[in-house]
Amino acid sequence: MLESLKSLVLEANLELVRRGLVLYTFGNASGIDRATGLVAIKPSGVPYEGMTAEHMVVSDLDGKIVEGNLKPSSDLATHLELYKAFPSIGGVVHTHSEFATAWAQAGREIPAYGTTHADYFYGPVPVTEELSAEEIGGDYVLNTGKAILRRFKSLDPDAVPGVIVAGHAPFTWGKDAMQAAYHAVVLEAVARMAFYTATLNPECRGVSQALLDRHYFRKHGAKATYGQGG
Amino acid sequence: MLESLKSLVLEANLELVRRGLVLYTFGNASGIDRATGLVAIKPSGVPYEGMTAEHMVVSDLDGKIVEGNLKPSSDLATHLELYKAFPSIGGVVHTHSEFATAWAQAGREIPAYGTTHADYFYGPVPVTEELSAEEIGGDYVLNTGKAILRRFKSLDPDAVPGVIVAGHAPFTWGKDAMQAAYHAVVLEAVARMAFYTATLNPECRGVSQALLDRHYFRKHGAKATYGQGG
Amino acid sequence: MLESLKSLVLEANLELVRRGLVLYTFGNASGIDRATGLVAIKPSGVPYEGMTAEHMVVSDLDGKIVEGNLKPSSDLATHLELYKAFPSIGGVVHTHSEFATAWAQAGREIPAYGTTHADYFYGPVPVTEELSAEEIGGDYVLNTGKAILRRFKSLDPDAVPGVIVAGHAPFTWGKDAMQAAYHAVVLEAVARMAFYTATLNPECRGVSQALLDRHYFRKHGAKATYGQGG
Amino acid sequence: MLESLKSLVLEANLELVRRGLVLYTFGNASGIDRATGLVAIKPSGVPYEGMTAEHMVVSDLDGKIVEGNLKPSSDLATHLELYKAFPSIGGVVHTHSEFATAWAQAGREIPAYGTTHADYFYGPVPVTEELSAEEIGGDYVLNTGKAILRRFKSLDPDAVPGVIVAGHAPFTWGKDAMQAAYHAVVLEAVARMAFYTATLNPECRGVSQALLDRHYFRKHGAKATYGQGG
Repeated sequence: MLESLKSLVLEANLELVRRGLVLYTFGNASGIDRATGLVAIKPSGVPYEGMTAEHMVVSDLDGKIVEGNLKPSSDLATHLELYKAFPSIGGVVHTHSEFATAWAQAGREIPAYGTTHADYFYGPVPVTEELSAEEIGGDYVLNTGKAILRRFKSLDPDAVPGVIVAGHAPFTWGKDAMQAAYHAVVLEAVARMAFYTATLNPECRGVSQALLDRHYFRKHGAKATYGQGG
Repeated sequence: MLESLKSLVLEANLELVRRGLVLYTFGNASGIDRATGLVAIKPSGVPYEGMTAEHMVVSDLDGKIVEGNLKPSSDLATHLELYKAFPSIGGVVHTHSEFATAWAQAGREIPAYGTTHADYFYGPVPVTEELSAEEIGGDYVLNTGKAILRRFKSLDPDAVPGVIVAGHAPFTWGKDAMQAAYHAVVLEAVARMAFYTATLNPECRGVSQALLDRHYFRKHGAKATYGQGG
Repeated sequence: MLESLKSLVLEANLELVRRGLVLYTFGNASGIDRATGLVAIKPSGVPYEGMTAEHMVVSDLDGKIVEGNLKPSSDLATHLELYKAFPSIGGVVHTHSEFATAWAQAGREIPAYGTTHADYFYGPVPVTEELSAEEIGGDYVLNTGKAILRRFKSLDPDAVPGVIVAGHAPFTWGKDAMQAAYHAVVLEAVARMAFYTATLNPECRGVSQALLDRHYFRKHGAKATYGQGG
Repeated sequence: MLESLKSLVLEANLELVRRGLVLYTFGNASGIDRATGLVAIKPSGVPYEGMTAEHMVVSDLDGKIVEGNLKPSSDLATHLELYKAFPSIGGVVHTHSEFATAWAQAGREIPAYGTTHADYFYGPVPVTEELSAEEIGGDYVLNTGKAILRRFKSLDPDAVPGVIVAGHAPFTWGKDAMQAAYHAVVLEAVARMAFYTATLNPECRGVSQALLDRHYFRKHGAKATYGQGG
């Protein structure tokens, strides 16, 4: 069941490989079928080479595996937490891509330094608080999701489709698994350019609100002018 | 019509892909036929893979589309502004290549730190002023072009075939679309080396006027000695 | 003899090439057959291209060559010292991979800045003391091994499967040659991200003990939850 | 004539492409036949793609072209100056490889930070003085060679097979064109690691004289132990 979802989730996982975002079995992408509430996700620790749609594991939103012989990604509980809290999203991606991870390790949000950033993220890419020893010692993967949700209390997940988890790495999302992967790729490029920018100008304040508005809304919303749509 | 122009513009766009300057649908190259005043430019948001000369959109200098079923690059108005102001140029390229963009985001011009730079840019690669909220809220793409022209009031676009737009990214130009792409590739290499140089020696003053003259004029002008010409 | 060991050692050496960790003939991987105490290692200064399992040199733990027409890697004595002191390991890898080597040259241990690190190294990747002029002038390669062992006096080589030798470069190990190579690849990625992290936040303290524990033990030991095992 | 020399020089030029050291037509390699005093060098500004041995230009040590229809590399006079002053060398390479060029632009010698460096360069890779306006305005390419020779007055070109020209880029040499190219590749790797090292530890002093001696002499001289020779 959910053949097209599993195929799309496979493609999203392979996109991470093609774009150099993952090493060995690192990283994972998932997608949700909102009609049934079922999530397809990459299996845990399986090589990307030779991976097929059949390897995708299907879980319900409570984490109960309903299809697949393999164990799901060990980050499944974080994905599920995001799907439950952000009803508009259809895909989630987690990588340890190097520059986004470096910002996460440094505990710094990624400022909106330029229009490349503003085209996709309407404001800084936020960083979560560090998890407490209790949260880490408890249901750690679930608590990672909860830390993201706390950080998004006053943020719109459609306007800022990604986050960096302090001391860990980024999560991104989108309308489906492929768009979540696309956002992971763009986030890494943005993080890389932000690293160079912060080195060249440690006092850099980033783009003005006017520029942030202009670039974000030229790709998003009813007045979007980019691309062939509309 | 303009088959050879459209082919050249396609090739210039593909050169940006081959050289790693663009991600997904980022970037755009255009070329002008000075006899007719018609400009061929990449369509907006179309994947490079599978792109053909037929996809190029033809516009007049006022931005009126005269051929093509696709919407032109959303940066068209900036290209047109440059063609109107710089009569000697035949091609324009815009990318978000990572190091040139980082200098743009940092709001710093790229100093002429060495002979690689001097071979192509006769002086620093200038950075525009930031656009005002009014300029951004108005005809933003056109105003980006106007900001470039203000910056070039006392600069020769043939001697300095590129600029970085503050908070945004670079534009380059040349005698045709391929040379504009070539300048985009060289600018990125120069920006990368300048990043490393500024890190190694924050006080670096760059090359002397004598060295700037020597290198620039060995590749340009009547006394050029590089290559097989002359 | 030891055909499967030699094949595995060859594969580990080639993995270093595939992952971009070695230049020309740099680097070497070895593996040990614990039953016989024989070690297979890459020959010295031989190109990776065209290398076969037959080129691997077999030595006993005293460095006596028992098979092979080529001279063994000039780092053999360091490998042997590690095999003798760490009975649980089955493979050793040495590279001059660029970021791990930079930390070695800087004389700094690599802090456990994030969960990518914690997944593989249970604490900082330690750096040895510099060798004295006497140690360098004496049996240098053996003394490099001794410097590593001194550094591991109070460290568990199974929990921290690698080290950086001051002014030199990294050594990694694992249950066999392939895992040692895997650890070399991960170490380079970790070293790269740590470089960016230290630049973004020079005061960064790294992950908490709780997070270090959680990530390390989710991939290691009886309670491991990552992958398809268990 | 000199078919094997021209083939070797071609291969050395192509090695620069394969190793990512050159962009477009940047860079050049040459080799000398000491019996006849004739030098084969890459033509100026010709694409590497499709280049054959027949394209190599043959010059005598005074710069008189004795074979070939193309103009020689515009850097020929620097190559000749090195061949005349360093009788033991058989090949010269010039690139604008990015990290070595950054050190040149920063006006800083590359310290011997580690054993990778010490394996090939017996001490820092020196940087020339900046050329004066008179030297630049005069026979610039020849004067670049003279600046290198002044810097090597008390250095042994066999022990330090490369230099960085201030504000410009590196030159390397070796027993033949291929070894000069090999040294250019290693120099770029060394320059890259030195950049990271200097960032991680600005106070880094580099390896001890004992370590410099040990590594250099294990690859060079009568007591060399690396590789299959001896």
